[in-house]
Amino acid sequence: MPSYKAPVEDVMFLLNDVLDINKYNNLPGFEDVSPETVGAILGEGAKMCEELLQPLNASGDREGCIRSDDGTVTTPDGFKPAYQAYREGGWVGLPAPAEYGGAGLPAVLNSVMQEFVSGANLAFGMYPGLTQGAIAALLEHGSDAQKQTYLPKMVAGEWTGTMNLTEPLCGTDLGLIRTKAVPVGDGSYKISGTKIFISAGEHDLADNIVHLVLARIEGAPAGTKGISLFVCPKYLVNADGSLGARNKVSCGKIEEKMGIHANSTCVMNYEEAIGYLVGTENKGLAAMFVMMNEARLAVGMQGLALGEVATQNAAAYARDRLQGRALTGAKEADKAADPIIVHPDVRRTLMTARALNEGGRALALATALQADIHRRSPDAAARQAADDRLGLMTPIVKAILTENGLQNAINSQQMFGGHGYIAEVGVEQFVRDARITLIYEGANGIQALDLVGRKLPRDGGRAMMSYLGELNGFLKAHEADEALKPYIAPLKASAGHLQQATMWLMQNALAKPDNAGAASTDYLHLFGLVALGYMWAQMAKAALAKGESDFAKNKLTTAKFFADRLLPETGLRLARVTAGAGDVMALPAEAF
Amino acid sequence: MPSYKAPVEDVMFLLNDVLDINKYNNLPGFEDVSPETVGAILGEGAKMCEELLQPLNASGDREGCIRSDDGTVTTPDGFKPAYQAYREGGWVGLPAPAEYGGAGLPAVLNSVMQEFVSGANLAFGMYPGLTQGAIAALLEHGSDAQKQTYLPKMVAGEWTGTMNLTEPLCGTDLGLIRTKAVPVGDGSYKISGTKIFISAGEHDLADNIVHLVLARIEGAPAGTKGISLFVCPKYLVNADGSLGARNKVSCGKIEEKMGIHANSTCVMNYEEAIGYLVGTENKGLAAMFVMMNEARLAVGMQGLALGEVATQNAAAYARDRLQGRALTGAKEADKAADPIIVHPDVRRTLMTARALNEGGRALALATALQADIHRRSPDAAARQAADDRLGLMTPIVKAILTENGLQNAINSQQMFGGHGYIAEVGVEQFVRDARITLIYEGANGIQALDLVGRKLPRDGGRAMMSYLGELNGFLKAHEADEALKPYIAPLKASAGHLQQATMWLMQNALAKPDNAGAASTDYLHLFGLVALGYMWAQMAKAALAKGESDFAKNKLTTAKFFADRLLPETGLRLARVTAGAGDVMALPAEAF
Repeated sequence: MPSYKAPVEDVMFLLNDVLDINKYNNLPGFEDVSPETVGAILGEGAKMCEELLQPLNASGDREGCIRSDDGTVTTPDGFKPAYQAYREGGWVGLPAPAEYGGAGLPAVLNSVMQEFVSGANLAFGMYPGLTQGAIAALLEHGSDAQKQTYLPKMVAGEWTGTMNLTEPLCGTDLGLIRTKAVPVGDGSYKISGTKIFISAGEHDLADNIVHLVLARIEGAPAGTKGISLFVCPKYLVNADGSLGARNKVSCGKIEEKMGIHANSTCVMNYEEAIGYLVGTENKGLAAMFVMMNEARLAVGMQGLALGEVATQNAAAYARDRLQGRALTGAKEADKAADPIIVHPDVRRTLMTARALNEGGRALALATALQADIHRRSPDAAARQAADDRLGLMTPIVKAILTENGLQNAINSQQMFGGHGYIAEVGVEQFVRDARITLIYEGANGIQALDLVGRKLPRDGGRAMMSYLGELNGFLKAHEADEALKPYIAPLKASAGHLQQATMWLMQNALAKPDNAGAASTDYLHLFGLVALGYMWAQMAKAALAKGESDFAKNKLTTAKFFADRLLPETGLRLARVTAGAGDVMALPAEAF
Repeated sequence: MPSYKAPVEDVMFLLNDVLDINKYNNLPGFEDVSPETVGAILGEGAKMCEELLQPLNASGDREGCIRSDDGTVTTPDGFKPAYQAYREGGWVGLPAPAEYGGAGLPAVLNSVMQEFVSGANLAFGMYPGLTQGAIAALLEHGSDAQKQTYLPKMVAGEWTGTMNLTEPLCGTDLGLIRTKAVPVGDGSYKISGTKIFISAGEHDLADNIVHLVLARIEGAPAGTKGISLFVCPKYLVNADGSLGARNKVSCGKIEEKMGIHANSTCVMNYEEAIGYLVGTENKGLAAMFVMMNEARLAVGMQGLALGEVATQNAAAYARDRLQGRALTGAKEADKAADPIIVHPDVRRTLMTARALNEGGRALALATALQADIHRRSPDAAARQAADDRLGLMTPIVKAILTENGLQNAINSQQMFGGHGYIAEVGVEQFVRDARITLIYEGANGIQALDLVGRKLPRDGGRAMMSYLGELNGFLKAHEADEALKPYIAPLKASAGHLQQATMWLMQNALAKPDNAGAASTDYLHLFGLVALGYMWAQMAKAALAKGESDFAKNKLTTAKFFADRLLPETGLRLARVTAGAGDVMALPAEAF
């Protein structure tokens, strides 16, 4: 059976040595995050994930969620007590404001916990994860009364939350939403329609489920300009906060899926369910996007987490499994064969995974920190810069970390040979679970379009210019440093590729938008490699400053592996970006 | 529900226009393969796959195989009559000699059928596929009596075959085999031991199951030099050919797997089962490798097949699914949205799949044709050259076609968005099924080692020199041809990369074998890209010769896409090959 160890040491290195979060201790929420406090919190979180959640991962996959004829949904054995322990530990409210019962801790720590929880049990983690997204949306767009009604219970984890966007004919293109909202006259609405793929839509873990639903108010403009956001609880809430009548929203079906079986993916039927407008009429998409950005970063952490847990198990297997002999002669001559970790091709796979996992973690936490600065800084310019960076990096974190996570899960499974294909061994679940992270919260192709079509050109390219400025400044400041040369020189070449690609898009995409579309995925990967390379250079710098420990030496070796073997892919990506849309669009649609 | 259309037109183009199989009509088996005959055979085969086997694919996955307490195994509903129709159609014996009831047709046609069958229903195809492998081994190494006893029934498909290699402690490293064979004294042996991962090890499709088993005769030398091959039927065969006593070989368990649920993956227990030596004592591995090479090419076809069927379904979905608008303005303004095939990123995905599928098919059939020449040519030099080429290309076909197949299955699933993750939609099965092809018949890392460690240096590099000589001759002969320039120029650059990488290995791997191991996977991918590029250049040439048809135009467009966007990856692979083993092996094993 697989095991999981939360990568606490690596996280502490990132928070303290690379990101130096202590320098933000003037920001609210950061006052108390001394390395000792953070270590204690993450140590406790790690223990919970390793000992409480991980043991339910394989059984949860096997059992799945079960819907009864009355529409109730039962989660797998053990999930209820585990969720109770989880919420009593205060983990749902970790980043939420103290006034609603949260711990008010930085988002970056919550991102760390998202990785730990997902590495232990992705399907479990989605229940509180979606609640956190719903809390964020209500905090930003809910009325005071709505906040008072829902947030304390949600922050405590007594009620969970969901996002209801997708409909049978409407996924990426939310302008096609058909779910209707009819004003009742008392400020509430009657909501009718069908939503699909609603994660955690119905279950037995919480007293109430707070659905955030996109719907079209009768007579609203067509398309995305006529979508409003509603809060629609499973049980209506009385004035005194107690639970009232059962609302007319119910789970019509649970989907059979490739993975994340322990999370209920529901068809939700709204039959004149009572809902309340959140924020402004017809501005629902903007309100929902608060949740979406949080969720996209969280999904990046999920991808990373699955890549990490898969790699851990593959490494353990590679150290144990005796098969064949080293190419350079027997390493353990007293045994029937050498462990397969002696083989360079196995090492190559493990080093690749390590370089992608550690680089991805650094990038994700650096990005999550921008969310904190954006939300908490007293300095308007710093808030603006952080928001720019957060917006620019969100599609990259989501897409790159999930694709690397799936690839690492597949490569890890590969190391097990035939055993990796057997359900009982448990590693094929990582592949099936990881697979969803490339799809949900905006399929990765949509992330690439978001990057190229929205994030790059926004505000005259301000976010991108700021990123390139910072990166070039870093390169300039360190290129004379002999010790850093192995990491800086390749990064400089790749940064040049990113600049060329960006320039090419500016010159070729405005007049021919298909050039942007055809380039988008390769551009995102090119950018992602540079972003990981920049984090690796910063990690190398921090590791050099740390001195001679094994940890520091291993970081430097992995940094060099990334620079020598993975970063050069930017040249290929540049060639594809600049190949243009011609070949891509040449065939008629009927030819496929 | 997914559908499948066998790519007959593309195959006919390859056989007639690119490979020109008619020029081999002096070889036995090729006399009758006029384009009309081949078209008729493949047309009938395609119909069977599309109408008989494909409709059982999803249900077979859902139902799986069931083992009863008495050790019998039931295949999914519909498999029995489908198998009966399949064997009565003569498909099992298609490439087998006429003297045993086969059609004696070329292996290249059998490879085509392997793709069609696997595209329709991989799990089904494995039953007759393994039988064909066992037939090949008995043909080459069986005694006359063994051939008379087993082959007519197996060629007719009345009995099926298996390969029994793997044991719990022994997969890649067959020297660790523990299964024992004790001479009875009458020429037979009593075989005892446990074999695992035995595909089609037990089922209800055939009257008898003929197991080919690797075991160690009492007192045999340790390691691979003490392994012998035995034939061990489920039911012993009486002198008159009728079935006798039940042999003591039984299925102890069926594995729960990630995919190919409709094929029974068995733990086989041998408890003094009667077996008969095939070929020479202690030379079992060589005999089994006859099956393995056939099987490796067949697995390449399976990977291709899953990439093809996944792509077909993704293309159909992309033409149908309305979501969003084209970047260049609405294409179907009368509808609520445009079909997603208008998006360049969707096209890029489809074009990539098309370029890999069609190129892979060409490479695989060109390789299968070498097996025919090797087996049938009257000219010893031609036989030798064909064997060299077959040996060199087999690991490439196996690894590259399976990895591209999985990637295309994943990318196709991605195009369905959330729907792709739902079991009912049916495309996630392609990913789960495709996943095994990278693992079985030698995991792809083993293919890479086989290429670099065995196939390249063998006979002083004769096979590789011959390949490079032919490729360079082709480049030289066509580089002045303006019409071919878009395909030839990039191929020339990539062929240069292959030559550099080969040279680097010669100079750096002998003294430091870890350099070969660390380079092996990247070298295989580099070689694979060049091999696909060479096939694409040949296809472009044939398409130009064909004139102005849509088919020819689409080929040329796809050839250019391959040359511009996919082939340049060789530069990256070369950089990785020449990066050496240093970074790869730097970390101590305990650090992982």
